[in-house]
Amino acid sequence: MNAYELPQPYLLFMGDATEAGFAKTALGLKDWAPERCVGEWHLPGGSVFTGLPELAPRQAYAEGARALLIGVAAVGGAIMPHWLPALVEALEAGLDLISGMHTRMADTPVLVEAAARCGRRLYDVRTPPKNLPIGKGNKRSGRRLLTVGTDCALGKKYTALALTTALQARDVAVSFRATGQTGIMIAGAGIPIDAVVSDFVAGAAELLSPAADGAHWDIIEGQGSLFHPSFAGVSLGLLHGSQPDVLVLCHEAGRTHMLGLPDYPVPSLKEAIELHLALARRVNPAVRVAAVSLNTSQLSDAEALAAIHAVREELGIPCADPLRHPVEFAAVVDACLAMA
Amino acid sequence: MNAYELPQPYLLFMGDATEAGFAKTALGLKDWAPERCVGEWHLPGGSVFTGLPELAPRQAYAEGARALLIGVAAVGGAIMPHWLPALVEALEAGLDLISGMHTRMADTPVLVEAAARCGRRLYDVRTPPKNLPIGKGNKRSGRRLLTVGTDCALGKKYTALALTTALQARDVAVSFRATGQTGIMIAGAGIPIDAVVSDFVAGAAELLSPAADGAHWDIIEGQGSLFHPSFAGVSLGLLHGSQPDVLVLCHEAGRTHMLGLPDYPVPSLKEAIELHLALARRVNPAVRVAAVSLNTSQLSDAEALAAIHAVREELGIPCADPLRHPVEFAAVVDACLAMA
Repeated sequence: MNAYELPQPYLLFMGDATEAGFAKTALGLKDWAPERCVGEWHLPGGSVFTGLPELAPRQAYAEGARALLIGVAAVGGAIMPHWLPALVEALEAGLDLISGMHTRMADTPVLVEAAARCGRRLYDVRTPPKNLPIGKGNKRSGRRLLTVGTDCALGKKYTALALTTALQARDVAVSFRATGQTGIMIAGAGIPIDAVVSDFVAGAAELLSPAADGAHWDIIEGQGSLFHPSFAGVSLGLLHGSQPDVLVLCHEAGRTHMLGLPDYPVPSLKEAIELHLALARRVNPAVRVAAVSLNTSQLSDAEALAAIHAVREELGIPCADPLRHPVEFAAVVDACLAMA
Repeated sequence: MNAYELPQPYLLFMGDATEAGFAKTALGLKDWAPERCVGEWHLPGGSVFTGLPELAPRQAYAEGARALLIGVAAVGGAIMPHWLPALVEALEAGLDLISGMHTRMADTPVLVEAAARCGRRLYDVRTPPKNLPIGKGNKRSGRRLLTVGTDCALGKKYTALALTTALQARDVAVSFRATGQTGIMIAGAGIPIDAVVSDFVAGAAELLSPAADGAHWDIIEGQGSLFHPSFAGVSLGLLHGSQPDVLVLCHEAGRTHMLGLPDYPVPSLKEAIELHLALARRVNPAVRVAAVSLNTSQLSDAEALAAIHAVREELGIPCADPLRHPVEFAAVVDACLAMA
């Protein structure tokens, strides 16, 4: 695949973060890709821990690490100047660097110079690969599932990861296909789809999910929402290029308006299903919505159960919150497999 | 506006082209923006003429020209090496350079060096402006019309230009908003929307068509098609960011499959109208399709009239071919104005 393939395993750089909210990337990696992580490394004062062994770059390299991954965020997405000596130390220890920051390492001269001197590489995972193709729309073998949403930032990545883990547990051949920077770090590969030039989004999605064995599943991480007027074009390009057989609709119970846009209401589940099917049928007339993944994080236990039952009643398809009710999520997995 | 604003008027560079097909840009400028063109300039052997006066760069500068615009294309979209001495001569004469080639002048060292030496600028109109915003979805004042299509490359730009000219002739305040390289050269400003990073397409479209006087019309050049699986995301981002009040649907009579994709049929006009309205209502519930602009270039005169009448009968809205029947196109213009 011409998408990112990241050097692994990782040493997680925790910087001097003192709040878990700034270490979401590292904590997500520990949860979803522990086999790709050999340790963590703090600067003085850092107090967020993943529970992995504390290793300096040379020790980590000796333990097999091949990249230092920036697992913490700073306000504004910048690479902090006081991190630079540590990042150079990692390059000198033989590790490549992986960053999902907005500021690119490739635009940071001290890192570019040190990487060249050490013969190491800088992976800015928000920067898409070069020479992406235009979408072709040809039917590809293999099974494809895309997580889609009534809005942004409500569980499309989490749902895709939960589905991937569940299929692996059932010995189904499956690949998680990452489309955002955290997903790419978890998967060790992928394409940051919202950073791709618009003419090439469908082509990038086709590249991300290539023809595969007929029984193989690609679980593709959705981006944005067809209903979000800032990002719907990203979502449609990904939908067309992914040619999904199965959609899982992600929704947050109780969310009233689109992320950042108070004047735009969140669509109903029925509206969302109809529009997604109408647009996805253009590339795959057999596409179906298998289930709803409901984010109930704003609800009490009783409210969450009631909301899930209401969705099941209304739509007649399985519904579960993969984070809150992982056991009940099995019915969502069953429904997806039954569609193929 | 933070979109391109090109230095004007232009001297059209005709190179050594010997077939009109390679000089579409220059011929289009002569047709649609004669007031922006002071002359043309050929290399030895060139034999395609726009009819403008032949002027060398220094003469053209004296006549008011402020940029040399590359009006011819070479196979593959490259800047031909044997053009370079002429392009440098233009820079030395005080002209900026404007190019819609795929190869960027900014990546052509001899031009970069000469421009720096002469204090001149290189405008690669396929390269979008930096620092585009994310779409906000806020309602903006003024009236907006977007040309949309059942497919790519069937008359969306031509229709938008014809509408703009017709509104100007009626003394309506109007701006043509260009979204592709030829349109940008004609308008002297615009944003090459398919070259914008996908996350920013809607934001670019908002920037392109800013809030205006309530009686002012923006006529926005459409791109791609919601039905083309390679480019639909571009079209949707442009649709959302444009917040059109009025859509004019462009279609080519007799086209059977989508450009470059033999397995994808062209949608029916009814399907196209329904899908465009469903998606455009997200940003403007009052949006309407005013008319159909029918490209009848593959039909005989009798067939063309029959096709136009069939569309009027089927849909109950005006239909005309702006190139073939410019007088009858007035009914399309009337219908657009009546929507506001």
